[in-house]
Amino acid sequence: MSDMRSLWRVGPDVDLGAIDPRSTPGLPGRKVTGDDPKLWARAEVERIGAELATQQEMLFAQATVEPQLGRSVLLVLQAMDCGGKDGAIKRVAGTMDPLGLQIKAFGPPTPEELQHDFLWRIRKALPPAGYVGVFNRSHYEDVLVVRVNELAPESVWRPRYKKINDFERKLAGAGTTVVKVMLHISRAEQRERLMQRLVNPDKHWKFNPADLDARAKWDDYQAAYTEALATCNTDDAPWYVLPADRKWYRDWALAHLLRATFTDLKLTYPQADYDVTAQRSRLEADG
Amino acid sequence: MSDMRSLWRVGPDVDLGAIDPRSTPGLPGRKVTGDDPKLWARAEVERIGAELATQQEMLFAQATVEPQLGRSVLLVLQAMDCGGKDGAIKRVAGTMDPLGLQIKAFGPPTPEELQHDFLWRIRKALPPAGYVGVFNRSHYEDVLVVRVNELAPESVWRPRYKKINDFERKLAGAGTTVVKVMLHISRAEQRERLMQRLVNPDKHWKFNPADLDARAKWDDYQAAYTEALATCNTDDAPWYVLPADRKWYRDWALAHLLRATFTDLKLTYPQADYDVTAQRSRLEADG
Repeated sequence: MSDMRSLWRVGPDVDLGAIDPRSTPGLPGRKVTGDDPKLWARAEVERIGAELATQQEMLFAQATVEPQLGRSVLLVLQAMDCGGKDGAIKRVAGTMDPLGLQIKAFGPPTPEELQHDFLWRIRKALPPAGYVGVFNRSHYEDVLVVRVNELAPESVWRPRYKKINDFERKLAGAGTTVVKVMLHISRAEQRERLMQRLVNPDKHWKFNPADLDARAKWDDYQAAYTEALATCNTDDAPWYVLPADRKWYRDWALAHLLRATFTDLKLTYPQADYDVTAQRSRLEADG
Repeated sequence: MSDMRSLWRVGPDVDLGAIDPRSTPGLPGRKVTGDDPKLWARAEVERIGAELATQQEMLFAQATVEPQLGRSVLLVLQAMDCGGKDGAIKRVAGTMDPLGLQIKAFGPPTPEELQHDFLWRIRKALPPAGYVGVFNRSHYEDVLVVRVNELAPESVWRPRYKKINDFERKLAGAGTTVVKVMLHISRAEQRERLMQRLVNPDKHWKFNPADLDARAKWDDYQAAYTEALATCNTDDAPWYVLPADRKWYRDWALAHLLRATFTDLKLTYPQADYDVTAQRSRLEADG
């Protein structure tokens, strides 16, 4: 399977309006998927997920044997409300061993966090060597909601793009592979999903009236996303936009993206750092 | 299904030697399981796992709506090397949403951790309201390996039993349901599993020569476990011993144990803390 990442990688002139959230780039035709691409994609996610689990174990194994050479992977997930971050984590990250996952959700900063630089809480949540980290929202909120809602003046948020690029470059240099994904949904799909949360009592807790305030600023958010995508899209920490109106396509694409990322790392199980034969003899002598 | 926890709950006179690690208490007969209890148990873990995932979501939802009333669940897993902690986490905790899991593995304490009370690093790793925490090893190592290897004098470790009981009682009082599980394997099964790690190069990284040193002190460890089980077995934080030579039984038993624990919490999805009708109208007015 060739590297599919180019299907989703943004360019400097990224235009969210030109990416159809219902599209399914890279999806094989009906000859491959059969008549139910949704069912096919779910099975593919399971299959690729098993490969992700093996890759994750090798990442973990290497860091166990040689912590200072150990690498980590950090998936940064951003989306408008109802964009499917939680679902993608459950279905795709959930195929890996929870032991090797470190998932961190970032909400509005606490008073203590506000007393620090915006990257302070981010640094504290970075995955250790051997781990796959997932950020459910991230430091990008500091150039998204902060910008749209004017929670800080432009003199504060504007310099953050460069700070983010510096930070991510150092992360990459320190052995963390950073993959940034925007799950891209349409305004109509968001309406549909918000309505589901209001109609189904078991989902009421997922709804927050502030979601509708954010929705009213849809265009401002899309503009803020566009600038973040265009400005912070480096080879050290590339941005991908996944069409996400179809949940099964979103998960399928994310699974491929993660697999390609792991493949780059050329992971293997580490050599033993002890004398295997001697230890076998020792164990064999011990009934 | 009646509460099966009594099958595994220890008493004050717990005797590990009298619990057969290959036994399968509570397992239905062949009329129910069919000819392959292993296959049946795996399917049951999937089925019960789906219930655990729903319970976990309700726990998370309640803490989202009312953080100060939110509860958490903490599963403490202890075992001899190769006892199956990692496998149990993967197969049973892995049925839940990774978003709501907080898994923490405790290794030998760092120099910084040693400068603090033994519970310092434990407190830092407690699950927040709404989360299911899993401790892969725990503060019990401070009365197990520390005692067996004489890493501290008895005047240090002996008072820890009481400190642990105090700590766990306060945890329970603060809304954390504590479930402590020892995965109980036989010396012969440990030998088999260690050998697998030495024979299969992909598993070499899981083996550590120190594992054989610990194995040489098997009886001392069993004695230390027995005292911890007997002394720190409170209604606030009960100890369970699961026969664990058969991995499929271990997982099946743990799934039942967790489900019974959740059932006690009588969780439901929380009521909305906003006016649902008003929010629906607002969304409907917004194309």
